[in-house]
Amino acid sequence: MTRHPTETPPTTPAAPHQMWGGRFSLGPSEALDALNRSLPVDHRLWPQDVTASKAWVHALGRVGVLTSAEEAQLLDGLDRVAERLADEGIDAILPGYTHGQRAQPVRWAYVLVAHAWPFVRDRQRLADARRRVAELPLGSGAIAGSGFVVDRVLLKEALGFRAVSANALDVTGDRDFVAEVLFDMALVGTHLSRLGAELVQYASSEYGFVRLADEFSTGSSLMPQKRNPDVFELARAKSGRLLGDLVALLTTLKGIPAGYSKDLQEDKALLFDAFDTLAVVLPAVTGALASLGVDPERMRAALDASLRATDLADLLVEAGVPFRESHTLVGKLVREAERAGVPLDRVPQAVAGGIHPALGAALAQLGTWEDSVEGRATPGGASRKSVEDQLEELRKLFGAGAGP
Amino acid sequence: MTRHPTETPPTTPAAPHQMWGGRFSLGPSEALDALNRSLPVDHRLWPQDVTASKAWVHALGRVGVLTSAEEAQLLDGLDRVAERLADEGIDAILPGYTHGQRAQPVRWAYVLVAHAWPFVRDRQRLADARRRVAELPLGSGAIAGSGFVVDRVLLKEALGFRAVSANALDVTGDRDFVAEVLFDMALVGTHLSRLGAELVQYASSEYGFVRLADEFSTGSSLMPQKRNPDVFELARAKSGRLLGDLVALLTTLKGIPAGYSKDLQEDKALLFDAFDTLAVVLPAVTGALASLGVDPERMRAALDASLRATDLADLLVEAGVPFRESHTLVGKLVREAERAGVPLDRVPQAVAGGIHPALGAALAQLGTWEDSVEGRATPGGASRKSVEDQLEELRKLFGAGAGP
Amino acid sequence: MTRHPTETPPTTPAAPHQMWGGRFSLGPSEALDALNRSLPVDHRLWPQDVTASKAWVHALGRVGVLTSAEEAQLLDGLDRVAERLADEGIDAILPGYTHGQRAQPVRWAYVLVAHAWPFVRDRQRLADARRRVAELPLGSGAIAGSGFVVDRVLLKEALGFRAVSANALDVTGDRDFVAEVLFDMALVGTHLSRLGAELVQYASSEYGFVRLADEFSTGSSLMPQKRNPDVFELARAKSGRLLGDLVALLTTLKGIPAGYSKDLQEDKALLFDAFDTLAVVLPAVTGALASLGVDPERMRAALDASLRATDLADLLVEAGVPFRESHTLVGKLVREAERAGVPLDRVPQAVAGGIHPALGAALAQLGTWEDSVEGRATPGGASRKSVEDQLEELRKLFGAGAGP
Amino acid sequence: MTRHPTETPPTTPAAPHQMWGGRFSLGPSEALDALNRSLPVDHRLWPQDVTASKAWVHALGRVGVLTSAEEAQLLDGLDRVAERLADEGIDAILPGYTHGQRAQPVRWAYVLVAHAWPFVRDRQRLADARRRVAELPLGSGAIAGSGFVVDRVLLKEALGFRAVSANALDVTGDRDFVAEVLFDMALVGTHLSRLGAELVQYASSEYGFVRLADEFSTGSSLMPQKRNPDVFELARAKSGRLLGDLVALLTTLKGIPAGYSKDLQEDKALLFDAFDTLAVVLPAVTGALASLGVDPERMRAALDASLRATDLADLLVEAGVPFRESHTLVGKLVREAERAGVPLDRVPQAVAGGIHPALGAALAQLGTWEDSVEGRATPGGASRKSVEDQLEELRKLFGAGAGP
Repeated sequence: MTRHPTETPPTTPAAPHQMWGGRFSLGPSEALDALNRSLPVDHRLWPQDVTASKAWVHALGRVGVLTSAEEAQLLDGLDRVAERLADEGIDAILPGYTHGQRAQPVRWAYVLVAHAWPFVRDRQRLADARRRVAELPLGSGAIAGSGFVVDRVLLKEALGFRAVSANALDVTGDRDFVAEVLFDMALVGTHLSRLGAELVQYASSEYGFVRLADEFSTGSSLMPQKRNPDVFELARAKSGRLLGDLVALLTTLKGIPAGYSKDLQEDKALLFDAFDTLAVVLPAVTGALASLGVDPERMRAALDASLRATDLADLLVEAGVPFRESHTLVGKLVREAERAGVPLDRVPQAVAGGIHPALGAALAQLGTWEDSVEGRATPGGASRKSVEDQLEELRKLFGAGAGP
Repeated sequence: MTRHPTETPPTTPAAPHQMWGGRFSLGPSEALDALNRSLPVDHRLWPQDVTASKAWVHALGRVGVLTSAEEAQLLDGLDRVAERLADEGIDAILPGYTHGQRAQPVRWAYVLVAHAWPFVRDRQRLADARRRVAELPLGSGAIAGSGFVVDRVLLKEALGFRAVSANALDVTGDRDFVAEVLFDMALVGTHLSRLGAELVQYASSEYGFVRLADEFSTGSSLMPQKRNPDVFELARAKSGRLLGDLVALLTTLKGIPAGYSKDLQEDKALLFDAFDTLAVVLPAVTGALASLGVDPERMRAALDASLRATDLADLLVEAGVPFRESHTLVGKLVREAERAGVPLDRVPQAVAGGIHPALGAALAQLGTWEDSVEGRATPGGASRKSVEDQLEELRKLFGAGAGP
Repeated sequence: MTRHPTETPPTTPAAPHQMWGGRFSLGPSEALDALNRSLPVDHRLWPQDVTASKAWVHALGRVGVLTSAEEAQLLDGLDRVAERLADEGIDAILPGYTHGQRAQPVRWAYVLVAHAWPFVRDRQRLADARRRVAELPLGSGAIAGSGFVVDRVLLKEALGFRAVSANALDVTGDRDFVAEVLFDMALVGTHLSRLGAELVQYASSEYGFVRLADEFSTGSSLMPQKRNPDVFELARAKSGRLLGDLVALLTTLKGIPAGYSKDLQEDKALLFDAFDTLAVVLPAVTGALASLGVDPERMRAALDASLRATDLADLLVEAGVPFRESHTLVGKLVREAERAGVPLDRVPQAVAGGIHPALGAALAQLGTWEDSVEGRATPGGASRKSVEDQLEELRKLFGAGAGP
Repeated sequence: MTRHPTETPPTTPAAPHQMWGGRFSLGPSEALDALNRSLPVDHRLWPQDVTASKAWVHALGRVGVLTSAEEAQLLDGLDRVAERLADEGIDAILPGYTHGQRAQPVRWAYVLVAHAWPFVRDRQRLADARRRVAELPLGSGAIAGSGFVVDRVLLKEALGFRAVSANALDVTGDRDFVAEVLFDMALVGTHLSRLGAELVQYASSEYGFVRLADEFSTGSSLMPQKRNPDVFELARAKSGRLLGDLVALLTTLKGIPAGYSKDLQEDKALLFDAFDTLAVVLPAVTGALASLGVDPERMRAALDASLRATDLADLLVEAGVPFRESHTLVGKLVREAERAGVPLDRVPQAVAGGIHPALGAALAQLGTWEDSVEGRATPGGASRKSVEDQLEELRKLFGAGAGP
């Protein structure tokens, strides 16, 4: 067992007796003291400080990055965001969008599931990070290894680490594990921002696809009619803060030498800030999603006939028209429909046939919206079976005991 | 006087009676409540809340960005960092560096003054920001202006603003003033990082130019001999956090529509974090500089003869040798000195004259280090008069009443 | 006149005869050569290289940051973005939004003008930067001033600079002027992202407020009916790149010492990248705005009766009901209207009067949408006069000769 | 086999016949065209465009992120940076530093190896990313899956992907794989910045531990004596640009909806910029390291006696003095040595014994510097065996066929 603490600077808020007192005639100034403690962040590691040894705090803090209660909360939050969602709404059909424009009909469950997969990748990245980080730093001394006989391999086994760190100079100055986790969380934030922004849009009067429950809406102190989607706005906003934490760390690390520098103490405040941010956002998003009302009629009403264009082009291709030509032909039909002010599927067959004989026939063959969606039956597509397969896969991934 | 608050969402930790209660059957969920309050940052604006009106808080908070006690503290901190320094050390001569390599002799006061000018520019930028920000938002209502007769011009005069804001939709969603101040502070941080990194270097045993006072040093809990320059390391490090705050805000603002969105509530936590960071760093740096010991002998010892190379080239030019040729000739002399293992100014005159007759003569003409520095007498140069002029100018700029 | 170049490293792609050749026995390796030249960015400064002196390039490049053709293009682009449209659309009334929700009726011209004011602030910031940057660095030598008698004040006058730089060590390592301009451009990018995102939304089928001209739309290679607002999507996207350039510079500057380091050569590639980005985005946005079709009928159709809630609350206040109570009363009316499935202004007077006598009267007093907008007559509000005043002010600011 | 291209926008610089021509009466404006093409980046994917199908380009481009020639170059570069050096220098002993201060004696090879391990982690991260990214997007259509029967599993096998993508809406808008690789490269950049900064320092006259070869040095056009470490300065600097690329992408992704938006076209320019940056930096750093001269005598000269403090404290602990007390005792000895102006190991035994009897004995027991280093024999420590073990492990990791 190592018998002396590393040089890692004091992590308790106010050491009554500073170790280096023998050397200096004056104690630290108040200004330096304030700067050195700067933020009361280290108390977060106190529960792990079972032996009152700073070395232990350091070591456990390292692996603690990803085994703490925060991790469980974070992963559970990701699961819940990914799960809600998604069971219902297989029957509800709405436009899928590209470029912010109606593109093709899809199922509501399919849209929600599309937002769940990024969180699956986030879990995988966090699992990779946890595996990588689990290297025991204990026994590294200040920078050159310990001067006492420490069985690092035994310690590693006892404490449940994957490996012992390879180089003491590297490990005392390494904050890759913080950077990697901060990046993973910044990407979680990016995914939340995309989900949030899309739901703010769907909650607008213009879309009207979803309606937030009373307990997840806020009103306006000025406009009595307002029902504001604060949860989703903040889900959109917090990506900024999480990216800021990552930039702060990488900029701090830039250009400092190997081994310990005081600069490295910045890491914990940033990591905890990111954890705390997600620990507030994820439950709120989960709750708002779980209680979200859906309006299948507004969704259906948004399916205008122009969304049939791809179906028509596909039918032309099946009838032997080359894809490029069929695309051009349907384009002409779209323009004709706009000119005449009628829906695409209401252009008279004679007019359509005048553009190309196969186009008239294709118009007659168009089925229901359900037919259209079921026509996209490749794995990963919008068809009923594809969505049900995805839901089952997600349930497995997020099931009990299926941790990353 | 406006009679109703803006839509800006409730900023007090727990409103006993939320304004929008009439509309909803359920109150906000706990998770939403936590997210909405998220950070107890708004209490920072309470002292300004003289009328218990959130509109007032909003308006005063806006201009308060730069008239608060924090500003005085920040500017005072910049002044102090820029002033210390600098009075002493005109006589001490040390190498000036480029590319991390000894380049030309300069005065110690000149080096410190070089780090003061960036803070002068920082003050100017903050002054520009304060002028720009001082637009009265009061009377803007939610987004469309007030429905009541409000004399905004009278209010502006009474409250000491420069102008009334031009467009209510713009001003309720505008956070330019936060972004600009965060940038200004991020650049302060960049300047502190350069000053800090340079002083960490000068405090090393290898340079040994400066020595931190006991009360601004820390020791090591492992190595009894250590005297660590934590203050300057943290000055170097905090630039990361300040840049992170700026990135967080700009990313948060990205792509949100005009007018108020909940996303905008992120601004204050970031602004206060940056203020708090500088409020801790600046006094510590000021104190450490004020008590910094200087070692003119170590400085002088670092002036090796190769620093005479530019002087020699200048002398050749004065003797009529074209600059390009004289540079090449001195390069040959440097190589000769390295080969022979003698200082540049100890190469025998015969050897030097063998390279070029004028080179032998130039060697004989070299004066003292003081002569060399005094030879750089252009305004802004390293000569005594130039440094004294700069010190006087800085004293004026940072003098009482000379606020930005 | 300075007779020797600064140490600033070679900025021409391949110097046939490197100045420092006299010193080394071997020339630089190919790998170093590639790294040193790294990007062919410096040719951008060639036109200014009138004297074939690198010092001149450096000096003029500095002030050239903001007097080059790029600046004219940038400012002109900002003007054009700010001017278009805005003239028309005073009569068209649409919902103004907060939280992505319909809030109060406003004029279309008012919305466009709200997006113009940020660009006015951008111009002011760029003007501040230009004033600040115009300090003559010539005569600074390597770091310590020139060894020759250079009349820097004369040079400053001749070259049209505002002042001579104060300290040679500072100025050779200073890149504040690049950082400040990059920030200004990153904020331009943020403003463009907000404008772009809002217009992508307004161009959707769900809003249908605007329609891009054919020449500023793109289609889909897959879906024949698509009309994609690429211009506005890219206006939204490019803010990322501009922020990236700023972060790149500030991180590069972090922790390097005063005076010249090779690191500083990164500045130009970043600055030019930002300029080039805006030089492509601004004309495209200008063109798309100039040719944008507006649909006043879709705008009017989006004005649902709930937007009258503020008007009703204001009428109650005028009738003597305290604001808090009137807000609650209208909230009850909103809930009643939702329950009964009727528009807010169609709730029977008896029902409204049952909630509060003054509410029934207020319902009867509601005027037209035009009345509602004209009721917000404070300066900066949505009324006709306020918008016309703003347009006149903007025309003045962007008029010929009114440069920043 | 999919028979129609995805909606992914045209990736060839100028399509002679745009697919969507049938729909519009006017072609795109020149300004839009310029913006849409904006950067000639897509030609980088042409070699992969075997079928002239944009879908293929998209799919192969995706996996191509990490199987391209660039990857080989990148990984090879990392290997080479990690390998050089390191073999030699086991005998050379120099101070290891913390806080920029001499801390404990270590081997030169140990310092170099400490900088190699971060690149090992970088390789692991890139390997994780490659595994994760290898999901086949082909057959996803625009957002809803393909309308034709495509055997995606067969395609996956044929093209060597790990899995088929799970959801077409997700995969068409997903840029996680770009973000993850950009982060991995930004962290490579951070590691290079730390290595570069440390070597700039070691190459200074004050340290004098290393000397760059002529072919990896540059001179000064002004100062004939200069030998500048441009390679290491640029290695330090480029971390800024790499971080900028990452910030640019994440900010671009922030808040855009699922599915394809034009914003996503920003990804490639950023990815290629990061690749190109490392493709220039890595070979230059490799070459400079391979040809770096080492000065063991300067290293040895920097080992001042105060570095013995930890050894003394360890000896006291072995003699039964509690660690805290022994630290204080050695601190007193350090102060005594400073007061008397003698090296720590030259304090008279009587004086040392006066502080504590065991201290006098400990002074007598101090061995050579070699003894001191060998005393740190834990795995990962600075002892000869530990360094040799690390070198062998690194050789295995970077050996032929040991790809990530």
